[in-house]
Amino acid sequence: MPDPFATLVQELARLPGLGRRSAERAALSLVARGAAAINPLAEALVAARDGVAACTRCGAITPRGADPCRLCTDPARDDAQLLVVEDPGDILAIERSGAYRGRYHSLHGRISPMSGTGPADLTLGALLARLAEGSVREVVLALPTDVEGDATASWLAETVARRAPAVRVTRLAYGLPADSGVRYSDPLTLRRAIAGRQ
Amino acid sequence: MPDPFATLVQELARLPGLGRRSAERAALSLVARGAAAINPLAEALVAARDGVAACTRCGAITPRGADPCRLCTDPARDDAQLLVVEDPGDILAIERSGAYRGRYHSLHGRISPMSGTGPADLTLGALLARLAEGSVREVVLALPTDVEGDATASWLAETVARRAPAVRVTRLAYGLPADSGVRYSDPLTLRRAIAGRQ
Repeated sequence: MPDPFATLVQELARLPGLGRRSAERAALSLVARGAAAINPLAEALVAARDGVAACTRCGAITPRGADPCRLCTDPARDDAQLLVVEDPGDILAIERSGAYRGRYHSLHGRISPMSGTGPADLTLGALLARLAEGSVREVVLALPTDVEGDATASWLAETVARRAPAVRVTRLAYGLPADSGVRYSDPLTLRRAIAGRQ
Repeated sequence: MPDPFATLVQELARLPGLGRRSAERAALSLVARGAAAINPLAEALVAARDGVAACTRCGAITPRGADPCRLCTDPARDDAQLLVVEDPGDILAIERSGAYRGRYHSLHGRISPMSGTGPADLTLGALLARLAEGSVREVVLALPTDVEGDATASWLAETVARRAPAVRVTRLAYGLPADSGVRYSDPLTLRRAIAGRQ
């Protein structure tokens, strides 16, 4: 195996979510398809490097040079509310809903013993520093509704209660999704919809 | 989310083994670390594009311009034996052992109902075409010793028996690995080592 291939495998294996075997499979697929597969990826990497960055305050993706991002600096948004998500992509989904006008914070992950992600891998220090600034009165947890998301939310709720006891912690409501119904819903969704009935 | 980020996610999601959510996580990790993370990957991609290719005959990684590869063209190697592996990386491991002097064929994968990989996704047509050339008298299956590897091997053995009945199909021996012992071996390895005792 000549060196350029081994180097590519090694670089791909640095990406979160790609183990060594998957990195080798990905490198093989790229090399086998050649420039038609490699050029778009190489160009996308360079364009992202030059064009965007992660906001150093909330973690949202922002045009390079606009840091803190528009969501952090917009004076019309409410400093008293801080919505916590797993990834910046979640911020976009919430913005599309038009239902939230506060600030954001991306954890850049979730607690996952299975994949070896612990509290130290999340942006928890930055979150607690923002709470210490004193403006935030409510932390809204908008984490995935699965076991790891629940565990992360419980752990965050406890940590915020201990470190910033004046801040209220809420979670998005559980229940039936829109355009769905009882017969299409899994048992856990139904149990949560029944328990949270209004 | 500005466009360069979305484009990068889209390109990363084309890699086998990276789903949409993992691609977003990988893109975020790259953008957050900036040029220090992106430049080595972009450079490795370009170097691999310009420096190596997959051998169009056996699938091994070969310096660009040397296709078919050295393993396919070396006149000292035995055309009567064809060793079948899952990935080109396996070829390197076999070569390091020094125990094999025939030709190679990479399937570029295995049959895996879980990840949606079927026979049509493997390089089976190329394998059967090589058998039809008439030189190969033995196909040596060197596939992973797990459930999917076993299923792929059984399916290949049947296919070769039907399409090239004169070709003998063998598999690498199962048993205890070197520098190990009974007390360190899992039950399946022990069952196979006992069944294959000599």
